[in-house]
Amino acid sequence: METNWVKNAAGRRIPTQVNGQEVIPFQGVGKYRVQGKKHAPSIPSVVDFPKDGNKVVSSLKEALQKAGLGNGMTISTHHHFRDGDLVSNRIFDIAHQLGVKDLRWFPSASFPCNSPLIKYLEDGTIHHIEGSLNGPLGRFTSEGKMRGTAVLRSHGGRVQAIQDGEVKIDIAVIAAPSCDSFGNANALYGPSACGVLGFAEMDVRYAEKVIMVTDNLVDFPCLPIQIEGNYVDYVVVVDKIGIPEKIVSGTTQITRSPDRLKIAELTARFCLETEILHDRCIIQSGAGSISLAFGVFVHQMLKGKNWKAAVSFGGSTKYSVQMLQEGTAEKILEGQLFDTAAIESMRENPLHHNFSVFNAYNYHSKGNLTSMIDLVTLGATEVDVNFNANVVTHSDGYLLHGIGGWQNCLHAKNVILPVPLFRDRIPVIVDEVTTLCGPGELIDVIVTERGIAINPLRADLIEKAKAANLPLKTIYELKEEAERICGKPQKPQFTDQLIGIVKWPDGTVIDAIRQVKNIEV
Amino acid sequence: METNWVKNAAGRRIPTQVNGQEVIPFQGVGKYRVQGKKHAPSIPSVVDFPKDGNKVVSSLKEALQKAGLGNGMTISTHHHFRDGDLVSNRIFDIAHQLGVKDLRWFPSASFPCNSPLIKYLEDGTIHHIEGSLNGPLGRFTSEGKMRGTAVLRSHGGRVQAIQDGEVKIDIAVIAAPSCDSFGNANALYGPSACGVLGFAEMDVRYAEKVIMVTDNLVDFPCLPIQIEGNYVDYVVVVDKIGIPEKIVSGTTQITRSPDRLKIAELTARFCLETEILHDRCIIQSGAGSISLAFGVFVHQMLKGKNWKAAVSFGGSTKYSVQMLQEGTAEKILEGQLFDTAAIESMRENPLHHNFSVFNAYNYHSKGNLTSMIDLVTLGATEVDVNFNANVVTHSDGYLLHGIGGWQNCLHAKNVILPVPLFRDRIPVIVDEVTTLCGPGELIDVIVTERGIAINPLRADLIEKAKAANLPLKTIYELKEEAERICGKPQKPQFTDQLIGIVKWPDGTVIDAIRQVKNIEV
Repeated sequence: METNWVKNAAGRRIPTQVNGQEVIPFQGVGKYRVQGKKHAPSIPSVVDFPKDGNKVVSSLKEALQKAGLGNGMTISTHHHFRDGDLVSNRIFDIAHQLGVKDLRWFPSASFPCNSPLIKYLEDGTIHHIEGSLNGPLGRFTSEGKMRGTAVLRSHGGRVQAIQDGEVKIDIAVIAAPSCDSFGNANALYGPSACGVLGFAEMDVRYAEKVIMVTDNLVDFPCLPIQIEGNYVDYVVVVDKIGIPEKIVSGTTQITRSPDRLKIAELTARFCLETEILHDRCIIQSGAGSISLAFGVFVHQMLKGKNWKAAVSFGGSTKYSVQMLQEGTAEKILEGQLFDTAAIESMRENPLHHNFSVFNAYNYHSKGNLTSMIDLVTLGATEVDVNFNANVVTHSDGYLLHGIGGWQNCLHAKNVILPVPLFRDRIPVIVDEVTTLCGPGELIDVIVTERGIAINPLRADLIEKAKAANLPLKTIYELKEEAERICGKPQKPQFTDQLIGIVKWPDGTVIDAIRQVKNIEV
Repeated sequence: METNWVKNAAGRRIPTQVNGQEVIPFQGVGKYRVQGKKHAPSIPSVVDFPKDGNKVVSSLKEALQKAGLGNGMTISTHHHFRDGDLVSNRIFDIAHQLGVKDLRWFPSASFPCNSPLIKYLEDGTIHHIEGSLNGPLGRFTSEGKMRGTAVLRSHGGRVQAIQDGEVKIDIAVIAAPSCDSFGNANALYGPSACGVLGFAEMDVRYAEKVIMVTDNLVDFPCLPIQIEGNYVDYVVVVDKIGIPEKIVSGTTQITRSPDRLKIAELTARFCLETEILHDRCIIQSGAGSISLAFGVFVHQMLKGKNWKAAVSFGGSTKYSVQMLQEGTAEKILEGQLFDTAAIESMRENPLHHNFSVFNAYNYHSKGNLTSMIDLVTLGATEVDVNFNANVVTHSDGYLLHGIGGWQNCLHAKNVILPVPLFRDRIPVIVDEVTTLCGPGELIDVIVTERGIAINPLRADLIEKAKAANLPLKTIYELKEEAERICGKPQKPQFTDQLIGIVKWPDGTVIDAIRQVKNIEV
């Protein structure tokens, strides 16, 4: 099908339709006003459920068949196991066996462990994926090999899409570390404990059918209840749903690079000198390699001042848990857990609260918690001279990362991107980002190992940083410095074939991604 | 308007329309199959909410005006304060001041403390009430003085009505014992702590506008979160929202009558001999005066046998808390709290869980927990020879009570009604109930101080009870015995004016209530 392109308010060329549906172009931050009603799933009835509450069926196959698995359906999963997910691929193995075609997979994120699904994208079992495409699936998509168009959303944007009925889930399959026969579930206990199930919360409420898959069937009632059995159709018991050790994967290792440690330290110093960091501040923990190091410096600074963060929003790691234990964070509100220390804390520490973080990120709700956060530090693959940032494609044009909570966190009071000036001799600061994920007006500060660039919109921060003799540079100076060292980077080459779009948290389309040119297809 | 009457499957005469809406006649237990989609409230947007998350407005009046309070709207409230509610009446004082008319009040229950609202029913501020009408409001309604028709629903039926869009709430006003400026709330702390906010849960999710009223504004974030601020529009701070001591009101005093203690003891003995009571049974605590005494006997029996209830569902009191403390109940799943000891337990004891009891009672969800309960004991104003029971009207025809969770609990495996043979010399067992609230097929056993009648459908229980030499009688024998003592009771006299209907948990109409005749109007 011919793609019709229009320019959105950010000046980016985007399609008018995606996967057969009209889309709304990005209209500027806070400019789009949604109309309409929330999605209304079918009303179930107790009449159709066993009186003894036992919803266990013999296999995932049986559950999928009973749930009416059929061509063109939307199947959702969560990614709390990250690269240790043992459930998602099985769903499509079964769909393939059953000859079901054209499914839409709607994970909260995908990981390299999901690359076996490429064969089902090739044979027509899966039509396309909506959700982050980390690694091999992203490369496959960038090569123009996925029949449908990838739709990339933030965590909050995914909740918005479910709530607004933009994505209607036919079957949600929830890997549940502890579950009873009625479907009440939590992620705190069991051999595959992952701590929380926040990514699955909206799927469960809005999907037509919900299947719980567990390797730890417990006596009724499974407590505490993170997922209510009242929303569950079937329960399936399998040998193993996930590999908790593999939760610690991808972005959850602290950096050892001296340059990056320097960036982290400089960022922390910047936050202290500009008073972004203060007693009872509200912060968001990140799991990027620099963010983790930054967190350690923040912990030390708060400790030195005898201050504490009033709230730390998770994704948590052993580093944020240490803050909670040593009193530099008063409470953690948890959305996802990145390591086993964090899972243990979630289970044991009453100050570590399970929390609907992703609903709290939902732009189509009554306020976002992200705008109350004092400080977030985020990564980026590219930043341009207008402070626009890219987090999904590399400078070679390949789609290799998801958005996660990144866009949602841009609404915080102070947004800092601690990034190296270049990676593998490719500058991070460029003339124009390959893909626009975050508009520059929301990005306040870029901290590199060779200086700090502050968005001119933040005169207040510039003044304080100057007074503190912090190594300020303009973003142009940083860009030129990178180019002096690495040379002017080549722009990636694309065909005009649409392969993906990037949604803004309000559901509009902020950018499009096209097929990478000059590759073997 | 002329009322058209039809007979439903229970043989009761019911109207075809109520308050201008078509209704569905009761079709038999488990016979009605719902069609359609859940209610879809409007999609909100962060654009319309303050960035700093502060939703506090100066007064309830301002909040109601901002929420667009207007003629004909539906206003919902919860009754966790029972007879100590200080918020509901204020709403209508303000509506009256503002000249707003024809409101529908949709409380989860009303109490005598709400009788000042009679003047607003008289002057047209309130059109009618949907919810239990305890005491004076019920009497007013029974006299035919309310312009609209009362709609009585069980707790689960109220959730069903909200979820299914049968009742669309325009403004939910939630009295919140602890609340932050974003609207996150719980009922655990503060001068008006009532423990949980389960009755308000669905209101918050489905109402167009949500106002939190608190006398204890706490720092963000209010934890643990029982109500998510993401669903809240406005926060109002007032001096006092409720009188916790008055939570202990109405039905929450243990009986001192020797006859009723005898009933409670006989019921407990019956449960033990028939093996309804067993190790790891699932029970529902009641707060009626006999149920409380029964609970104490059960506690002693379990203790004697070294057994424990696997789960006790609340409404909790100090008696159920004692079971938790002394190990005769392993866990409490809590829906409402009837005294301060129970509130304290909820706050302090990790085995006392906040739980979506009312959603778990919702007949239009994926299974009801009530059908998994081994044993419930319930009260009744009347039981008839077909085991049908009435819980809302007295034998004189007056509507004086709500349904509460009563109908929902009828789905338990064993339903026992421990009732006195007569009250104030009026027999409880009658030829035909004045108002049908529960069909006899769901009611297993009637225990009186003069013998036990078992529903012939439960041959299993009859056999066990006979073997145990329990004092069995037929229901006819019990009725005759009562009539020998008290005389044949007069049937209440009604006009043909409809004043209320009783819904079955599936949303159909099981009975209608008419105006009481021969009264001063």
